[in-house]
Amino acid sequence: MVKESKIINVAVIGVSQRGLGLIDCLNNMDDVRVTVVCDLYEDRMENASNAILEKCGYKPSCCKDYREVVQRKDVDCVIISTAWSAHINIAIASMKAGKPVGMEVGGAYSIQECWDLVKVKEETGVEFMMLENCCYGREELTVLNMVKQGLFGEIIHCQGGYQHDLRSEIAMGLENRHYRFRNYQHRNGEVYPTHELGPIAKYLDINRGNRFLTLTSMASKARGLREWIIRNKGPEHEHAKIEFTQGDIVTTMIKCAHGETILLIHDTTLPRVYSRGGRVQGTKGIWMEDKSAVYIEGISPYETWEPFENYLEKYEHPLWVEFRKTGVQGGHGGMDFLVLRAFVESVKNNTPPPIDVYDAATWMTVTCLSEESIAMGSIPVAFPDFTNGKWINREEEKPSKYALSKVFYECF
Amino acid sequence: MVKESKIINVAVIGVSQRGLGLIDCLNNMDDVRVTVVCDLYEDRMENASNAILEKCGYKPSCCKDYREVVQRKDVDCVIISTAWSAHINIAIASMKAGKPVGMEVGGAYSIQECWDLVKVKEETGVEFMMLENCCYGREELTVLNMVKQGLFGEIIHCQGGYQHDLRSEIAMGLENRHYRFRNYQHRNGEVYPTHELGPIAKYLDINRGNRFLTLTSMASKARGLREWIIRNKGPEHEHAKIEFTQGDIVTTMIKCAHGETILLIHDTTLPRVYSRGGRVQGTKGIWMEDKSAVYIEGISPYETWEPFENYLEKYEHPLWVEFRKTGVQGGHGGMDFLVLRAFVESVKNNTPPPIDVYDAATWMTVTCLSEESIAMGSIPVAFPDFTNGKWINREEEKPSKYALSKVFYECF
Repeated sequence: MVKESKIINVAVIGVSQRGLGLIDCLNNMDDVRVTVVCDLYEDRMENASNAILEKCGYKPSCCKDYREVVQRKDVDCVIISTAWSAHINIAIASMKAGKPVGMEVGGAYSIQECWDLVKVKEETGVEFMMLENCCYGREELTVLNMVKQGLFGEIIHCQGGYQHDLRSEIAMGLENRHYRFRNYQHRNGEVYPTHELGPIAKYLDINRGNRFLTLTSMASKARGLREWIIRNKGPEHEHAKIEFTQGDIVTTMIKCAHGETILLIHDTTLPRVYSRGGRVQGTKGIWMEDKSAVYIEGISPYETWEPFENYLEKYEHPLWVEFRKTGVQGGHGGMDFLVLRAFVESVKNNTPPPIDVYDAATWMTVTCLSEESIAMGSIPVAFPDFTNGKWINREEEKPSKYALSKVFYECF
Repeated sequence: MVKESKIINVAVIGVSQRGLGLIDCLNNMDDVRVTVVCDLYEDRMENASNAILEKCGYKPSCCKDYREVVQRKDVDCVIISTAWSAHINIAIASMKAGKPVGMEVGGAYSIQECWDLVKVKEETGVEFMMLENCCYGREELTVLNMVKQGLFGEIIHCQGGYQHDLRSEIAMGLENRHYRFRNYQHRNGEVYPTHELGPIAKYLDINRGNRFLTLTSMASKARGLREWIIRNKGPEHEHAKIEFTQGDIVTTMIKCAHGETILLIHDTTLPRVYSRGGRVQGTKGIWMEDKSAVYIEGISPYETWEPFENYLEKYEHPLWVEFRKTGVQGGHGGMDFLVLRAFVESVKNNTPPPIDVYDAATWMTVTCLSEESIAMGSIPVAFPDFTNGKWINREEEKPSKYALSKVFYECF
């Protein structure tokens, strides 16, 4: 395995928009070298290669076949930012080749592929991390800190959403090879649950003394995307005829082993202002992202919202205090950098990553479970226990397992 | 039936806090006389009687038995503001005695009692109105106006909640004979759905060309009320031992015949700031009560919320424009007055009320359906069609049926 002082050679597989963003982040790390870029499209590899040349003064290898990439000697670990449907196959190939994996977010297509991912991780012992950047958001980590310090009392209910008007991006689908286009044309479910669910899972100690039991999903009719295409490309455009299956609003309710409930909203094909709509409610207080406000009984003035800012000062997560001191960098307000550092440090120190394969399987499986629930008329469906019972005792193992560094140990 | 010029004699049955509020409103109406007050408790009747004496200079009759009240010659119509569980029986007795009914809000205990209510209305032909005041809220009616004018495009999704910290009120339960106490001790469901669902049903033309098809509910654990009792009355208090069954947060998803989805949140036993959490989303825009904001594609600056105030000026409902001219009065910011006027005018003119027995049955049944769904592990349950098919054609009948007055005709 790689030593702590050594430079880590990274292959980035999938170098469309998201891959480029990650490369941009990695280029700024002294202990990382992107040696290989991989994509099905030559133009994308060319872009990525040029970005690295421009920033770092060298050209990485370009390789179309991920199966070759994971075998290369100049690759210590792999970052996967392809279309959703390729994530798990590539991750499995990489682990089987002994290469630790940092995998971008997305939802699963079947429960089985999540089991496969878990099994290969367990059999190979090669580390796997899901790169859920929102777990490292400043607001999310501050709220986590407030949760862990008991400010909200016993946690009862959490909410979140991926509420992001992606119509213009998706509708360019076939032109820009955007994988959402095909997904929205054929699927109907909570296709992108992890940005909001990741932080919530950390608030609720999921897979570490708690777990998701069941979910129920409901989808609205699908109108937004088609109406946008007709309005913007005209009723005669070939895409104007497509009947999308993906409901404009998909609502999902999750029940946890300790009686907490979670509400998720997927909302990407109607006009709106971006929001992850976070909410945490406990027996002592509530945080509400859409109001950027907090109410804590006995602290806040009676039935009056306080600005979140008041709490940010006092409860900002140590990681973010440190981050701001050393200089915030990287995409999405810094959280891309933090999640990539967690992965890189996990690889360098050969320690378990803070968002592991059980987290990934559990969060990703929301997608296929929600499709099943909707298809069956919003029936409740059960979550598999991907830990096979280990979640009951994992809480106590946390300190030793998560000692990536002083700062990262304290993170979740 | 009563003539338009005549003074309406009203009996108010149930004169606890809510009944007193309604009486206060009625006392200000020249064409209304509260002739009878009815309650199981003498002290409540005494309070109500004194309030009327003080304001209007006469004492109403006090009568403990509603069966006598509905037979009295000095009663033209009945207003019911008792505990939830008595609403429908009293309404049925009143209609059978030929007396039109204005019934306060609440949820149903069974589907059957909703059918009974509908059947008696149909058999007797006596008018029935549910007094859902929130349908007359200034913000709600403005949003309705925006919906009907197509500002949001095709409506896809609506949200609302009864999010009201009632812990201190409920926990005084046995002392102040608050019926919620016993309900929370034994039930688990969306026990109070109509304040948010009523306005949403009007946005979506429910029972008038659209209908609720199914719902699925999920309840969190119940912690808030007991923790409040322990903190405020001490762990030795007799109520501190009670294991409440009513989950702190109950989430309900409803699917409509035309593919719209509705999300309801019941949240009354955790600390928070009051909110009905309204949201309307269509293919052209969104309204979000918690931000008091609107975003309309092509009108609002790109991906930027506008204050709701901007739209209130332009789209305020004609009823409210009129109301503000003549002077806003009555509880809950004026909506109590408006809903009572709608009822009184319906009685005077012998015209169908704007919130009728089908609305009431449909909205109230959410409660027992949600209890069933939760008890069965969040299964989807089907709404009965209380109109027996009439909802398909009722839309076209609207103009003649809802011509209470120029203003009220335009209302929904």
